[in-house]
Amino acid sequence: MKGQPPLLVTMGDAAGIGPEIVVAAFRQGALADAVVVADAGVMRRAGAPMTAVIDAPGDLHAVPSGCLPVLQPAALPAELATLPWGRVDARNGAAAACCIEDAVRWVQAGEGAGIVTAPLHKEALAATGVPYPGHTEMLQMLAAPAGGPLPPVRMMLANDELRVVLVTIHVSLRRALDAVTFDAVLQTLRIAHAAAAAWGQSRPRIAVAGLNPHAGEGGLFGDEEIRIIGPAVQVARDAGLDVHGPFAPDTVFMRARRGEFDLVVAMTHDHGLIPVKYLGVEQGVNVTLGLPFVRTSPDHGTAFDIAGQGKADPASLLAAVQMARRLVAARAAASGAQ
Amino acid sequence: MKGQPPLLVTMGDAAGIGPEIVVAAFRQGALADAVVVADAGVMRRAGAPMTAVIDAPGDLHAVPSGCLPVLQPAALPAELATLPWGRVDARNGAAAACCIEDAVRWVQAGEGAGIVTAPLHKEALAATGVPYPGHTEMLQMLAAPAGGPLPPVRMMLANDELRVVLVTIHVSLRRALDAVTFDAVLQTLRIAHAAAAAWGQSRPRIAVAGLNPHAGEGGLFGDEEIRIIGPAVQVARDAGLDVHGPFAPDTVFMRARRGEFDLVVAMTHDHGLIPVKYLGVEQGVNVTLGLPFVRTSPDHGTAFDIAGQGKADPASLLAAVQMARRLVAARAAASGAQ
Repeated sequence: MKGQPPLLVTMGDAAGIGPEIVVAAFRQGALADAVVVADAGVMRRAGAPMTAVIDAPGDLHAVPSGCLPVLQPAALPAELATLPWGRVDARNGAAAACCIEDAVRWVQAGEGAGIVTAPLHKEALAATGVPYPGHTEMLQMLAAPAGGPLPPVRMMLANDELRVVLVTIHVSLRRALDAVTFDAVLQTLRIAHAAAAAWGQSRPRIAVAGLNPHAGEGGLFGDEEIRIIGPAVQVARDAGLDVHGPFAPDTVFMRARRGEFDLVVAMTHDHGLIPVKYLGVEQGVNVTLGLPFVRTSPDHGTAFDIAGQGKADPASLLAAVQMARRLVAARAAASGAQ
Repeated sequence: MKGQPPLLVTMGDAAGIGPEIVVAAFRQGALADAVVVADAGVMRRAGAPMTAVIDAPGDLHAVPSGCLPVLQPAALPAELATLPWGRVDARNGAAAACCIEDAVRWVQAGEGAGIVTAPLHKEALAATGVPYPGHTEMLQMLAAPAGGPLPPVRMMLANDELRVVLVTIHVSLRRALDAVTFDAVLQTLRIAHAAAAAWGQSRPRIAVAGLNPHAGEGGLFGDEEIRIIGPAVQVARDAGLDVHGPFAPDTVFMRARRGEFDLVVAMTHDHGLIPVKYLGVEQGVNVTLGLPFVRTSPDHGTAFDIAGQGKADPASLLAAVQMARRLVAARAAASGAQ
C-alpha cells in the first residue's frame, strides 16, 4: 500500500511574510509531511537552514532531516531573492502564480495530498496580467476541466470557536446585495453541509445569518430574508439538511460560538469575517470548499510592512497546515468508505 | 449645594424581562441612587420586596431601606399586572411609552440625572399607534424643542473591550447604503468625538470601518470609501479630531479591542454590533449619543420566551446603570469646568 503523498505548501509573494512563516513552521517541525513549492533562494533568504531541491513530491523521503524540501517550478525568474521586501513587483506576482499552478498539477496527478497557500499580494498578481483577483478564483479556474464549467466554490473561515461559510466575497457591498440569490444561498448551504464531513460530521447544525438588521424584523428592515434566504433555507431543510434561520446577524455568531450551531452561513464578507477575526487572526484558517482537492491558507495577507524582519507569526499557517491534514484524512476516510 | 438627582430607570414592557431584571439589580444594591418609573403592581409581580410609590424623584431620600422607590405615571392602565407574560399587548406598549415620557419630563425639569431604559417590545409599541420604531427615535422626538428640529443622535454600543458608534441603524442594508452620506459620516464622527468626554478623554482615537470588503480595496470592491467616507475622515482630521481610516471592516474591531483605538465608527448596524455582541451580550450597553440628557439601556430585548421565570440575567442592565453614572458624572464635571 502506497502512503499518503505529502502536503504542498506554496511560498506566496516572495516580498511578503509567506516565505518566513513557512520557514518558521518548518523549524517548529510542523512541516514533516510537506513539501514547499517555492524558489529555493527565496526560502534561504527567509532563513531556511538548508534547502533540498527535489524533482517530485515523492522524493521527500530522500531529503535529509533538517533540510527544507523544495519543489522549484522551472519557470521561476532567477533574480527573485534579490528583489526588495515589501514592494509590489510583477515578478513576485508571476512567481507566486507559477508555484500555485505547479502545486495544482501535482495534486491533480495524485502526487500531492492537498495545498496550503502562503499569502500572495493581489496587486502583484494583477501586475502580471493574471486575470484572477486572488487565490480562490485562480484555484477554481485551475481545477475546472478543460473547457468545462467552473466548480462552485465557497470560502470558509474557521478557528477553534467558529466556522463561517460565505455566500459572497470580493465584491462591493452593493453588488453583494444583488449576488444574494436563492440559488447562491442554496448552493452555499449544500457546500457547507458537505464540508462538515471533513471534521467528521455527517449532518452539521447550520445557522444562516440574515442580510439585514434583525434579519429584516419581519420585512420592516428589508425583505431579502422573506423573498430569498428563508425559501432557500426551507428547500435545504426539505432535502434533509439541518439548517436554521435566517437569524439576526448581530447575535447568531455569538450563539454558534457558544455551541448552538456547528457553522454559520453569512451573506457578506464582513458579516462573516468580523467575528472570525475579532479574537485575533492568528488562529484563523481559510478553506476553499468545493474544489476537487484540499486547499487551506492562513487568514492574513502578505504584511509587507513587517516582511523580512523576523516578526511574522506563523500561527495561522500552522493552523492552516493542521486543518489541511484533517481535511485530507477525512477525504481519505470518505473514499475508503465508498 | 443640592446633591445630584437620582437616576431614573424605566420598567420597559411589563410582559418582558424588564421588571424582573430591575428588581434583581435593586436586590443587588445596584440601584441605591435610582428611582424606578413603573407600575408598582408590575414591579411587585416581578419580585420587588416592597414598593414605595413616590410623587417626585426628590422624595427618594424618604424611602425606607429595602423598599423599591417607584414613580408611577398617572396615566397607566390599572390591569397591567394581570396581563400575561411574554405576549404582545398594546396596553403594555402604551405603559412602556408612558414611563419613558414621564422620565424625560423629570430629567428635563432637572429632577432626574439621566435615564436607564429596560427593554420595550417594538411590536407592542407599534400596536399603540406610537409612531416610533424604538426607544432611540422616541427619545429623540421627546428631546426636541417644541416645533424645533430633532437633535442628531447616534447609537453607541459599548462593553469593556469595545465601543462602537453607528452611522446607520434600523433600516434595510440596501437603504443603509444610501444613508451613508458625507454629512452622516462627518456628523457621526463629531458626535463620537464629543461622547468620549464621558469617559474622560478629550481627544479619543477614532477608527472608521469602511463599508465594503477590504474597505473597497482601492476602489476595486466599491468606491464609497473614496467618494464619501475618506473625505469625511479628512474633514474631521482637519478640524483636529484624531480620526483614522477607513479601514477594512474585518480587522478594525480586533485592532480596537487590542487597544489601538478608543472607539470605532461603523457604517452599518451589523458591522458594528456583531463584534460588540460576539463575546456575549451580558456586558453590552447601549448609549444614545446626542441627546440633551444621559440615556443608556441594556444590549438585549424583552426576551418574551423566558419572561417571568426568574432566569433573566441583569448583568447588561447593571452595566447600563454603571455607564449612566459615569456619563452623568462626566457631564457634571464638564459643566462645572465651564
